[in-house]
Amino acid sequence: MSQDDISLQPFLNSCESSTNILDSSEETMLEFGQYDDFHTIDWVRDISRDRLRHKQISRKSKESCWDLIKGTHDAWSGWLCVLFVGMAAGLFAGIVDIGASWMSDLKEGICPEAFWLNKEQCCWGSNDTTFDDRSCSQWLTWSQLFGIHSENAGTYILDYIIYVLWALSFSMIAVFLVRTLAPYACGSGIPEIKTILSGFIIRGYLGKWTLIIKSVCMMLAVSAGLSLGKEGPLVHVACCIGNFFSYLFPKYGRNEAKKREILSAASAAGVSVAFGAPIGGVLFSLEEVSYYFPLKTMWRSFFCALVAAFILRSINPFGNSHLVKFYVEYNTPWFFFELLPFILLGVFGGLYGAFFNKFNLKWCRFRKKSRMGLFPIAEVMIVTFVTALLAFPNPYTRENTSILIQRLFKDCGPVDDSDLCDYNATYAPNLNNRRNPYGEAGTGVQNAMWQLFLALILKGILTIFTFGMKVPAGLFIPSMAVGAIAGRLIGTGVEQLAYNFPDWILFDEACAGGQRCVTPGLYAMVGAAAALGGVTRMTVSLVVIMFELTGGLQYIIPIMAAVMTSKWVGDAFGKEGIYDAHIHLNGYPFLDAKEEFKHTTIAADIMRPRRGDPPLVVIEQDNMTVEELETLLQEDDYNGFPVVVSKETQLLVGFVLRRDLSHALDEARKAQDGVVSNSRVYFTTHVPGPLDVGPKPLKLKKMLDQSPFTITDQTPMEVVIDMFRKLGLRQCLVTHKG
Amino acid sequence: MSQDDISLQPFLNSCESSTNILDSSEETMLEFGQYDDFHTIDWVRDISRDRLRHKQISRKSKESCWDLIKGTHDAWSGWLCVLFVGMAAGLFAGIVDIGASWMSDLKEGICPEAFWLNKEQCCWGSNDTTFDDRSCSQWLTWSQLFGIHSENAGTYILDYIIYVLWALSFSMIAVFLVRTLAPYACGSGIPEIKTILSGFIIRGYLGKWTLIIKSVCMMLAVSAGLSLGKEGPLVHVACCIGNFFSYLFPKYGRNEAKKREILSAASAAGVSVAFGAPIGGVLFSLEEVSYYFPLKTMWRSFFCALVAAFILRSINPFGNSHLVKFYVEYNTPWFFFELLPFILLGVFGGLYGAFFNKFNLKWCRFRKKSRMGLFPIAEVMIVTFVTALLAFPNPYTRENTSILIQRLFKDCGPVDDSDLCDYNATYAPNLNNRRNPYGEAGTGVQNAMWQLFLALILKGILTIFTFGMKVPAGLFIPSMAVGAIAGRLIGTGVEQLAYNFPDWILFDEACAGGQRCVTPGLYAMVGAAAALGGVTRMTVSLVVIMFELTGGLQYIIPIMAAVMTSKWVGDAFGKEGIYDAHIHLNGYPFLDAKEEFKHTTIAADIMRPRRGDPPLVVIEQDNMTVEELETLLQEDDYNGFPVVVSKETQLLVGFVLRRDLSHALDEARKAQDGVVSNSRVYFTTHVPGPLDVGPKPLKLKKMLDQSPFTITDQTPMEVVIDMFRKLGLRQCLVTHKG
Repeated sequence: MSQDDISLQPFLNSCESSTNILDSSEETMLEFGQYDDFHTIDWVRDISRDRLRHKQISRKSKESCWDLIKGTHDAWSGWLCVLFVGMAAGLFAGIVDIGASWMSDLKEGICPEAFWLNKEQCCWGSNDTTFDDRSCSQWLTWSQLFGIHSENAGTYILDYIIYVLWALSFSMIAVFLVRTLAPYACGSGIPEIKTILSGFIIRGYLGKWTLIIKSVCMMLAVSAGLSLGKEGPLVHVACCIGNFFSYLFPKYGRNEAKKREILSAASAAGVSVAFGAPIGGVLFSLEEVSYYFPLKTMWRSFFCALVAAFILRSINPFGNSHLVKFYVEYNTPWFFFELLPFILLGVFGGLYGAFFNKFNLKWCRFRKKSRMGLFPIAEVMIVTFVTALLAFPNPYTRENTSILIQRLFKDCGPVDDSDLCDYNATYAPNLNNRRNPYGEAGTGVQNAMWQLFLALILKGILTIFTFGMKVPAGLFIPSMAVGAIAGRLIGTGVEQLAYNFPDWILFDEACAGGQRCVTPGLYAMVGAAAALGGVTRMTVSLVVIMFELTGGLQYIIPIMAAVMTSKWVGDAFGKEGIYDAHIHLNGYPFLDAKEEFKHTTIAADIMRPRRGDPPLVVIEQDNMTVEELETLLQEDDYNGFPVVVSKETQLLVGFVLRRDLSHALDEARKAQDGVVSNSRVYFTTHVPGPLDVGPKPLKLKKMLDQSPFTITDQTPMEVVIDMFRKLGLRQCLVTHKG
Repeated sequence: MSQDDISLQPFLNSCESSTNILDSSEETMLEFGQYDDFHTIDWVRDISRDRLRHKQISRKSKESCWDLIKGTHDAWSGWLCVLFVGMAAGLFAGIVDIGASWMSDLKEGICPEAFWLNKEQCCWGSNDTTFDDRSCSQWLTWSQLFGIHSENAGTYILDYIIYVLWALSFSMIAVFLVRTLAPYACGSGIPEIKTILSGFIIRGYLGKWTLIIKSVCMMLAVSAGLSLGKEGPLVHVACCIGNFFSYLFPKYGRNEAKKREILSAASAAGVSVAFGAPIGGVLFSLEEVSYYFPLKTMWRSFFCALVAAFILRSINPFGNSHLVKFYVEYNTPWFFFELLPFILLGVFGGLYGAFFNKFNLKWCRFRKKSRMGLFPIAEVMIVTFVTALLAFPNPYTRENTSILIQRLFKDCGPVDDSDLCDYNATYAPNLNNRRNPYGEAGTGVQNAMWQLFLALILKGILTIFTFGMKVPAGLFIPSMAVGAIAGRLIGTGVEQLAYNFPDWILFDEACAGGQRCVTPGLYAMVGAAAALGGVTRMTVSLVVIMFELTGGLQYIIPIMAAVMTSKWVGDAFGKEGIYDAHIHLNGYPFLDAKEEFKHTTIAADIMRPRRGDPPLVVIEQDNMTVEELETLLQEDDYNGFPVVVSKETQLLVGFVLRRDLSHALDEARKAQDGVVSNSRVYFTTHVPGPLDVGPKPLKLKKMLDQSPFTITDQTPMEVVIDMFRKLGLRQCLVTHKG
């Protein structure tokens, strides 16, 4: 069709005359471009539709002032839309952060004077001089609230039971809400968003209900103490917000390809608020989730991510003017010899990733096949029960995972008297007689190491069963926790080695004279990056996220060494990251831009019909009747049909979509006089006049796509796949000598 | 051709039998894939060639251990190559930094005790307690060296003359070296690198001589005090290094498309060392220069950029453990009301960018057309003379531009007693009785403002004449300097306003009670970003570079606001950044991926031959003789010819490249017996046996590309351009009904 003929009349001017019917029905289709659920969109078509719309508007805008305003609004609507998305994403993240932290603390106790404060905020209000980060007099555990102030086995068990009960009730509400109101709100959402951004339609996946329920259930699931994070679901929530706002701007809401630009920006904003890393968010969107990412989208994504971060910082959910709980700043350098343990951590991360991916997939497949999938509520309850039961006794698993990560990342300072920093150290006179946090490990550190080791095993195993349940569940935080624990363990080990053998050849220069040369917190951070890299196989974006978390360029090299090692080790056991694996598990169609294809086939080998099959169904351009076409539509379920000059010569004229054809035939039957079963259908410009005897002909030339993508049957498959990937084709016709 | 037939035999096994000739000649072509100078490469072809090579190697690697090692080496060679490139780029940058700083100071004086030290290093060695950053007793100006220690007009004039003479001699050496040894070493190189990365061949542009001469002349040109920077040329130098190392790895050296992956990584490394911004470098490579940027390249670019930064940090050219002279860290927050002056700075930056681009282009066009272009040495000498003459009297233009930028970015501290920080301030008791650098502007600040204003005008105008001369010349530093001066001026103005009217509604909250609320250094940084954005129209990468320079997330919002405003204001006057404008000026073929095309044409309108022209030259698949083909090659200068079944039916069979065809015919004439002028040429598999009378047929089936890209004549132009852009096509055949 000559696309300039289509005017942008609103949908309302419906059928008036017989020729108009086809025009307007075609417009409808072009204007709304609705796709069926679980179908793939046609990028080329959508993008050229948008170009056409743009052209129309800029032509019109010269006509009147109002049109000029409309044109300007149209040009700015992309920026406006991402501004709104960023603001809303920041707002939602702030609410979720505050809510999750309050509800997490609710499991352990309450602030009786102001029940809406979490433990930390509650303790700020108190005037205790003896405040350490474990307790304060304003904050009461449940047993204390009930008037039991002695610390014995009884109060412990009471607190234990209350903890488990809260966990169970949180997760019950969460899974119940998900089950009844928004089935799509479960999981991390990133595999599905990847699929959606690659051009697939899943109706309702980014809907309003999903948004609300996922936000609420995310808080509940995190508070229930399950081994999951809210970072992945935040990306999903941000995309829901993006989808919501895109409907306010018809330019995006009505064009699936354009809408994906907003969704890319939204996913950047999601990562930005999840980790306080706007640049990392943009790179995540580029590297991990997006499919079509023009530079304009990149710039908007950046803007969106920054606005979201700015709003979240204004909300200041953690009271530390940083966007995430586990933001750190180190002041100590790292030494060259430390690359060895860092690479070891990378190996650990890769192995853990491979282990996790394998068993999680096995478990998910088992859930899908067995009868277990029928009892999601029971499953969630059991996992919550086991998690709460095992987590409470260990102080490192009892607390919120992001607090754990914060604790592990933090360097031991002179005033830190937690177990992790309990060194048998001399009191240094140059530190105002405070403890010098470097020395032989005290009993506290030894205890902490054992507890951390148990926490490592617990988290590592529980996450396998948790990810994939019917609650919102992100992977980032548990993976990072596992890596951070491993890192802290190795880091403390290296530190003790360096303390005890400062003159060993490896430590020679850096640690000579008993100088402090190892920062266990940095090892935790490197380990976290390695484990996350092993599970997701992210690379650049992960390093940048970590860089933004530490706020120092100097730690990029250790992190990168670990992440690269982790990716290579992980790839040795299986190429797929967990998200891609889940995409395949769920059977979504996804053409991975990263995979290398090693086909030696040519197009002729894989095209349909195969050699020897019955010949391809084709439509002749001027020789078929309405009835014949209808039969054809009923008999075959191809998405479209090539139109040829005649069956004998098989010269390709164009391509007609199944949807368009059946729609047009229906409309014609209903409204166009004289169209009967044996009316001829013409796909040519030249239609024989009404002089002919016989029923009135039906002209469908406009419907014909005269420029289908064609390749010859000798084209190598790699080129074909490249075409599909880069141009976002839906179909491609294979020709042999025309 | 069925590509599997081609084996990767080395070039040596040349012609043995008559059939082998064509095979081996074809291999040669496929193996080396040489393109002519000033030609465009064929991405699709090169990439599928690499895939084929990869397949061969992985097939072979199963055969023997040696092949396995070779295969592993091949797989790792990309990483190895970027490792070398990064290391070399860091090394070169370090040398250039040290050399330029030494030679710059040489204009003013010398360190007699250790002439190889620059001023700063020289003064470190001195024990002066009265050291300020202007002078120290170890460092002697030339007049002091000659024994004149009184400060009067005579010594001033002596220093002045020596300054000008040094400048002239530096620039003379630079332009002379460029003219005689490496004509491509002039300019910034970024426009050409953009063109090369988009798939154009410019032989020698990235050669060894260019590398050496550009590095040396870069130092000389910077030291001559010309209004130019070494940051752009550093990108060119890094690309030369990339080109050099790619020849060590045949995988990259012999495949132009693959080589561009290394070049993309190299350009990231170049920016990384120029600004100490590895992430910014990768984004620069992605946003500004690269054309084909798969994710694997991104990861390698990141690695390369990091290695380069790491090496440069180890060299530590500035002695401050930072990669660039003008690295800063602010500790003061910014306030919301300041967005207004920041946006003003954005407007300034956009206007300056538009002004600069317009006049620089006019001047370059004038240079090209007029006779002035014939005297490049004289031009450089005159500009140097004028620059030196005008720059010496003003302390802000006399010094190296990057030191100026550093000075402007820096915040006034209590111990800073330079002019810029000369406030009439009370001595604050809480600052150990040091000066509180906030108060009414003293005479020093007022002086400095005037001098900076003059420097702004001088730099703004001189850069127009400098950029485009026959010396290595980058734009980043002078543009940033102009912006930084403007920013500092506005910043100081706002600061004085806030000091004098602290209760004004705008300042109300932030500056109440005479509190310090404005950081002029931050304004300088925002201004620098805005001006650079206006000139180059970079966006994300610029913000990220600035972010890495300041090391703080909190200043991203001001910088982004300014850069966005600057881009929009600049775009209102002309869409092109300076690099794109220079690409057009030099007439390089460059298909900009960012431009939006507004064609309403379809392929039929622009294809060749146009309607009404003589018919397209085609080759019949089995009906032409050698002579006919030779005539055809002589008469027409198309790059290739479509092969059809016969002239009557015009059914497309394939496409043959002019180069291949003429090569094959020559070879056949020379070596294949029985090929005479009227031998028939067959592009089909089935060749009539030698039973026929007449000369021996020539089989060229293997040469035929049986899968040319085809589109129909009704395809909209946008889709065609998309195809060319995204797939990197060289040609595309337009078909009408086959």
